[in-house]
Amino acid sequence: MPSRTLTLNLFLHHVGHHEAAWRHPSTRPGALFSPDYYVDLAQRAEAAKLDAVFFADGPVLHGGVEHNAVGTLEPILTLATIAARTERIGLIATASTTYYEPYNLARLFGTLDHVSGGRAGWNIVTTSSADASANFGLDAHPDPAVRYERAEEFLQAITRLWDSWEADAVVLDREAGRYADPARIHPAAFEGSHLRVGGPLNLARSPQGRPVLVQAGASNAGRDFAARWAEAIFTAHQRIEDAQAFYADVKEGARRHGRNPGPVKILPGISPFIGSTEAEARNLEREFNELTVPEYGLRQLGGQAGVDLSGLELDEPVPVEIFADAGDVTDNSRSRFQVVAGIVQRERPTLRQLLHRLAGARGHRVVVGTPEQVADTITEWFTQGAADGFNVMPPALPAGLEAFTEHVVPILQQRGLFRTEYAGRTLRDHLGLDVPENRYTAARLAAAVPELTHA
Amino acid sequence: MPSRTLTLNLFLHHVGHHEAAWRHPSTRPGALFSPDYYVDLAQRAEAAKLDAVFFADGPVLHGGVEHNAVGTLEPILTLATIAARTERIGLIATASTTYYEPYNLARLFGTLDHVSGGRAGWNIVTTSSADASANFGLDAHPDPAVRYERAEEFLQAITRLWDSWEADAVVLDREAGRYADPARIHPAAFEGSHLRVGGPLNLARSPQGRPVLVQAGASNAGRDFAARWAEAIFTAHQRIEDAQAFYADVKEGARRHGRNPGPVKILPGISPFIGSTEAEARNLEREFNELTVPEYGLRQLGGQAGVDLSGLELDEPVPVEIFADAGDVTDNSRSRFQVVAGIVQRERPTLRQLLHRLAGARGHRVVVGTPEQVADTITEWFTQGAADGFNVMPPALPAGLEAFTEHVVPILQQRGLFRTEYAGRTLRDHLGLDVPENRYTAARLAAAVPELTHA
Repeated sequence: MPSRTLTLNLFLHHVGHHEAAWRHPSTRPGALFSPDYYVDLAQRAEAAKLDAVFFADGPVLHGGVEHNAVGTLEPILTLATIAARTERIGLIATASTTYYEPYNLARLFGTLDHVSGGRAGWNIVTTSSADASANFGLDAHPDPAVRYERAEEFLQAITRLWDSWEADAVVLDREAGRYADPARIHPAAFEGSHLRVGGPLNLARSPQGRPVLVQAGASNAGRDFAARWAEAIFTAHQRIEDAQAFYADVKEGARRHGRNPGPVKILPGISPFIGSTEAEARNLEREFNELTVPEYGLRQLGGQAGVDLSGLELDEPVPVEIFADAGDVTDNSRSRFQVVAGIVQRERPTLRQLLHRLAGARGHRVVVGTPEQVADTITEWFTQGAADGFNVMPPALPAGLEAFTEHVVPILQQRGLFRTEYAGRTLRDHLGLDVPENRYTAARLAAAVPELTHA
Repeated sequence: MPSRTLTLNLFLHHVGHHEAAWRHPSTRPGALFSPDYYVDLAQRAEAAKLDAVFFADGPVLHGGVEHNAVGTLEPILTLATIAARTERIGLIATASTTYYEPYNLARLFGTLDHVSGGRAGWNIVTTSSADASANFGLDAHPDPAVRYERAEEFLQAITRLWDSWEADAVVLDREAGRYADPARIHPAAFEGSHLRVGGPLNLARSPQGRPVLVQAGASNAGRDFAARWAEAIFTAHQRIEDAQAFYADVKEGARRHGRNPGPVKILPGISPFIGSTEAEARNLEREFNELTVPEYGLRQLGGQAGVDLSGLELDEPVPVEIFADAGDVTDNSRSRFQVVAGIVQRERPTLRQLLHRLAGARGHRVVVGTPEQVADTITEWFTQGAADGFNVMPPALPAGLEAFTEHVVPILQQRGLFRTEYAGRTLRDHLGLDVPENRYTAARLAAAVPELTHA
């Protein structure tokens, strides 16, 4: 087996990633608020030896609830339930630095890491949906620059909280009546312009030291943040050349920040329609696309790309001018705009065709074909500097996951690109990431070196 | 079986409620951050048909960590893990209205209620520990009046969020492409002076409508809040006459607020040392008390009662003057002060004896005796208007829980005071509480009455 192997996460999104999945007879949208539904999916992913399940999130109700199953359980808590009924699979939840307090979030992810035996990951977002602000008493959603300033401070504060107990802080000396060594428990003592946190955390250091840090922002500020902090990056690309450029850029950014770029995983989303023939796969995609509600797709597209599509005919070509100016990529909606603009310029679709193109994975790559064809695309991106693995976004759950794990994963295993058994127990083990050094322990050991030299 | 039966919760507190429990050979303090430890306790409590497990919490590290096992997993998340491995037992977590955002907390408890199939309870606190403020960037801990003002707004906002999806909001009409009826999903639209929440929640209505609301504040503001909102009240009393007075006061308060006081459960804490003879039980208590670290007890007592004890001798009587002025009960530390002052005035203990008196349950009632004696105390309080049940706080876990469930619970069952099987599946079922009416559904039905009359 080559030393570099694929990372494969299951992206848990309602009853599937296709926006019409809830209408498809293979899905059970009535189970969306039942824990067994999520536990079953995680157990299937674990049986296939995937690295992790991955929950998207936003602290706001999506406006499209009339035509799609968009309400959702809180992900960190749902993963704690899944943790109790799985053994190995990683558990990645999205949470917002804009709408959480570092102390509360440090406790939630620290606890998830403890209760899962070291399987927690945090997908760090600053929340792009402006509607969220009203749920937290703000007059307006902070602009991207302010959100990323706060995110930077948030990471500095929360990593201090996770370090606040050194690994050997609990001494457990019953005889002497000494539970912990207070000299090995440190205040966070963080003072920023957005956040202040006293600390220490009220929780011992967790198995992974801290959750694996995942990030998904594709804007310039997002890329820079990722280059500093992220251990895995979730991204969206339609074409291998765009993915290669992004891959090179983020690895170079990590290097520029003094990090070893090797372990930083770049994980594009991929949504596979799988059939025993290509024609069967195309029929399956068509079946889903025909279930879309245009009203919903228009709302999505208008909101994500920030363009006015009213007055356009569904079966007329989309005027290229609407997507002519992608502008600077200052936030995620602009980068999503660029993806859509690229499709319009290259493919000249009708509005209905464009909606169908986006219905599968909201700008992530949709691959339609036989298991071999899907495995070939994955192999190509993995070996050609475009990806270290993928967030797999089955169009429908659990059927699309089953097709992927039963037919695509074995091919990747035969090619020596994917594990046939877990080698370790933690998410860091699966991803080949070290447990981060505790800053206080490191400082203490560094200070002790002269003494050792003199000894 | 009489219609009125006892409520019995297991209070989950580290490795036991006695402050020296971690030093006792029966406990495993090394398991404190392991989920299996909590799952095992909850499963034992469920096997004994207890109503719920109950997690205390505060978003701050207790200063006494050198001499006691005071770090802790985040409770809501830990209960989500327990939920996956239990079937019936209620799951009550403490969370602060001062240091959480209503939208985030509504999601966490709503999700806990979903993943547990309707077993969630929320112990509402405003956080009495002043040290918590520094963890959330505040210059000072808000005073009790401000905390209770915010708590009142918090409850108004969060109950609106929990009502925001009517029970029939999800219509799931695949044929018509209609997932939910937006007319049955409502913004919270709450505007207070401390909090504003837009809403709606991004989560369908949970099995219990909302978690059972529990409250523990004994101050005047706390009692008033409890009388308005609480469905169960956790309280601390040393003597039956004090408990009776509190019981009558809170039930009268509920009545004054237009509520039926019958279902409002008053649950004092009780910490039982159980032996096959009274002497054996007293020896067990002594064994624990002798393991206390005076330095820890002094810090606790000084912090809780707000008195300076430095310079006092451990084996000299505590000067009554120190506890002479209990003042008004404006916050919880004052009410705890009153409990301690009562002990000092009635019992004239030495400082060491006082520390031992408090070591067991921090002011909650400690009962020492045979299973019959413990059952007699419970029966007396239950039948004499002092309690509707108890939060059971075993001095050590799991041994003290085992003694209680194996020897005391059967006596209570034989007396017809406690269930031998669960009658329902939700915490509201166990406590005999109705699912709260959804305000929007109620308004709609009320508005529809004239139409029906005309029909």
